[in-house]
Amino acid sequence: MEFVKSVPNDKEQILAAIKSQINTHREVDLKKMLEELHPADIAEIIESLAEKQRVSVFGLLSSEKAAAVLYELNSEIVAPLMESLDKSIAAEIMDEMSTDDAADIIGDLKDEDKAKLLNLMEYADAEDVQELMDYPEDTAGGIMTTEYVAIREDITVERAIQVVREFAQEAETVYYVYVINERNQLVGVISLRELILAKSSATIADVMRRKVVSVNVQTDQEEVANMVAKYDFLAVPVVDNNNQLLGIVTVDDVIDVIREEATEDMYLLVGTTEIDDEEDLYHRIRKSVRYRLPWLLITLMSGVISGQIIKSFSGALNAMVALAFFIPLLTGMGGNLGTQSSTIIVRGIATGQIDSRKILHNIIREGLVGLSIGLICGFIVAIFAVLWQGKPILGLIVGLAMWGNMVTAATIGTLVPLLLKKLNVDPAVASAPFISTTLDNTGLIIYGSLTMLFFKFLI
Amino acid sequence: MEFVKSVPNDKEQILAAIKSQINTHREVDLKKMLEELHPADIAEIIESLAEKQRVSVFGLLSSEKAAAVLYELNSEIVAPLMESLDKSIAAEIMDEMSTDDAADIIGDLKDEDKAKLLNLMEYADAEDVQELMDYPEDTAGGIMTTEYVAIREDITVERAIQVVREFAQEAETVYYVYVINERNQLVGVISLRELILAKSSATIADVMRRKVVSVNVQTDQEEVANMVAKYDFLAVPVVDNNNQLLGIVTVDDVIDVIREEATEDMYLLVGTTEIDDEEDLYHRIRKSVRYRLPWLLITLMSGVISGQIIKSFSGALNAMVALAFFIPLLTGMGGNLGTQSSTIIVRGIATGQIDSRKILHNIIREGLVGLSIGLICGFIVAIFAVLWQGKPILGLIVGLAMWGNMVTAATIGTLVPLLLKKLNVDPAVASAPFISTTLDNTGLIIYGSLTMLFFKFLI
Repeated sequence: MEFVKSVPNDKEQILAAIKSQINTHREVDLKKMLEELHPADIAEIIESLAEKQRVSVFGLLSSEKAAAVLYELNSEIVAPLMESLDKSIAAEIMDEMSTDDAADIIGDLKDEDKAKLLNLMEYADAEDVQELMDYPEDTAGGIMTTEYVAIREDITVERAIQVVREFAQEAETVYYVYVINERNQLVGVISLRELILAKSSATIADVMRRKVVSVNVQTDQEEVANMVAKYDFLAVPVVDNNNQLLGIVTVDDVIDVIREEATEDMYLLVGTTEIDDEEDLYHRIRKSVRYRLPWLLITLMSGVISGQIIKSFSGALNAMVALAFFIPLLTGMGGNLGTQSSTIIVRGIATGQIDSRKILHNIIREGLVGLSIGLICGFIVAIFAVLWQGKPILGLIVGLAMWGNMVTAATIGTLVPLLLKKLNVDPAVASAPFISTTLDNTGLIIYGSLTMLFFKFLI
Repeated sequence: MEFVKSVPNDKEQILAAIKSQINTHREVDLKKMLEELHPADIAEIIESLAEKQRVSVFGLLSSEKAAAVLYELNSEIVAPLMESLDKSIAAEIMDEMSTDDAADIIGDLKDEDKAKLLNLMEYADAEDVQELMDYPEDTAGGIMTTEYVAIREDITVERAIQVVREFAQEAETVYYVYVINERNQLVGVISLRELILAKSSATIADVMRRKVVSVNVQTDQEEVANMVAKYDFLAVPVVDNNNQLLGIVTVDDVIDVIREEATEDMYLLVGTTEIDDEEDLYHRIRKSVRYRLPWLLITLMSGVISGQIIKSFSGALNAMVALAFFIPLLTGMGGNLGTQSSTIIVRGIATGQIDSRKILHNIIREGLVGLSIGLICGFIVAIFAVLWQGKPILGLIVGLAMWGNMVTAATIGTLVPLLLKKLNVDPAVASAPFISTTLDNTGLIIYGSLTMLFFKFLI
């Protein structure tokens, strides 16, 4: 978590310099240049190189740096890069890695590559990594690291600082020191800040905080992230059902979770998926089509139903073709309002701002918004229809349809994600395509019914 | 950043206990109970109480705790709460606050309340706060704190640790110690972890890192957040154009920025705004309507244009009413695909995954997705139209319209946010309502034109 190195102000320039140094085999300069860069930047540079150049640049890194870079690299590059290295060097790099980073990297690989990389590690480490990989990816266990500093409560502050010094190189964060008892149960915590402020002769038991916020290893990663965000923690300890300390989740991983979850929700809301800039154009498009098409086919089926609904009042439509003019207006407005409602609910549930158990409360609130907006929009549309077509009855039908449509839209847009949450399905699948096409059909049913009702006045 | 206190497992239960203790005037118990809670939890509890109870609970807190709670409270509660207190106590609370927290709290108040709270502070602090409030809210300056630890490079490690000890109480984070020269320019950084590992007799100049990543005070907060996320920093220093150190942005504030920006983008994408759970139902609905209505009225106007477009081919529609059956299908599909594209671009720009300068590259990629999906959907719809209505020519028109519509949708959905970014407008205003209603119209124009073209074969 702690590289404070130079960030290239002009990446293109650095990249050009590196390429020229590869071509002219000025390895010493290149090595020096790379050592000064942040691993995240080196990873970006390596990804933009041709495969052969990747290997030669990666090979120049110290094993410590290489481990950090490996973590930042796109998973598809990792396996071929490691295989191109000497076995002993590859093993050294794997040893430099924290177990959670190793688990993340290896977890993303194909099965045959997984075994290869695990075999490079020391037995104890490999076991730890294997264990970490067994936790579901989106739980506290899946994002935690096992490299933390834990001490016993009977030692002195002076001794504790010594322990921190010893572990500072290896641990992910030394800014919290956890206190455990003989059964490895979490009994306290002390921050490094408090530790250096404390009297060196005091025992840890005297100065530690006994009330520790921890999360269970099975807690959903989104919940862990919300907790860290709320309490401004730098790390949170992870325990099993017996309160035994298993690991910690650090704030940098929490940031990744928050960003990922937001992206995932946004994409899910419109029925699409992340694009991966590493793959070539053909694969990216194929992947994109494969993911987005099913959602759009559902929309398509729903559109066919829309056609069927319109067909059912085609008698009226034949008599007065102006009825068709208002179809996109009605369906579009319903879809937009409904999508607003469902987005508010989905995001509110994710950030913990909305209590998903208060179904009625939320429906009333959004329903009233729909009622108000529907009243205004219905009125405007009615006026417009009368002025445009000169038929008051058409204005009445269109205005009422708009109003009913908006109330339905707000209600359904609110209800669907809340119900999904209750069924333990990610509420973000209450996506815009799904909500808006459903609302196309409810809107058309309302419009058709009103048309039928007033049909005799229309012609 | 460092409270590690108990989190109530059952909030309802704690709330009930607190209410009963208020009613029975068991202030000592209540005080003890509150001291053990995290400020964020106390804030939640206070917000759920009646106004009179709020004052009595808040009055029980120590000034240190009260300052932390104040920061977590909804801004509408802050002013009345502080006014209800004795002036000297209120002043004490303001003194406990870090300058950036104070600036955040005061910045959210009405102008007359701002002055009142500023007057409670010591002159130097109030000046600092005033300065912080002058930076735009969404820049590095707007989210930074001025409470950091800075040292000179000629002191020893031992002395530096002593300085950290002295400032540990006041500074927002002591985990990075910044090194400045005589002109207050940032020349280096050392982490607390490195400091406790270093030889105590060494000078800071020997052990510090000279390459420091910093951000300019005017840098956009989203860019700061992306940087902290990428490099896994706990804090990043903020400098002016002369590299003089002005403050630091800490990771907890970055987490807030990331969450806020994601929420803002999501809401902007559907043309809505945050709901504020503190206000009463009437005000919430009024606010919601006021914000969402303008977007929906734009949609409405666009829907009127849709009507006009349909009217322009009403001759064909009169001749064959089945043409109307496919209107929701075509407009719906275009809107959904276009919204997918614009969401991908908007989110990609926000997270830095998409290079917004590569306009053509992005359009080609999404355009090809639209082409592929359009081909599949157009084919399905055409088959369906033929089977349903028995007219091959209708199938041809609807299929071609679908195809053209999907390509247009992907292109416009990609182009609009990229253009907005180029014009320095937040690309998230390329919202679903705007994109999808625009696409309704382009879709109808394509459908209408094809109908006109093949009109003679239709009847």
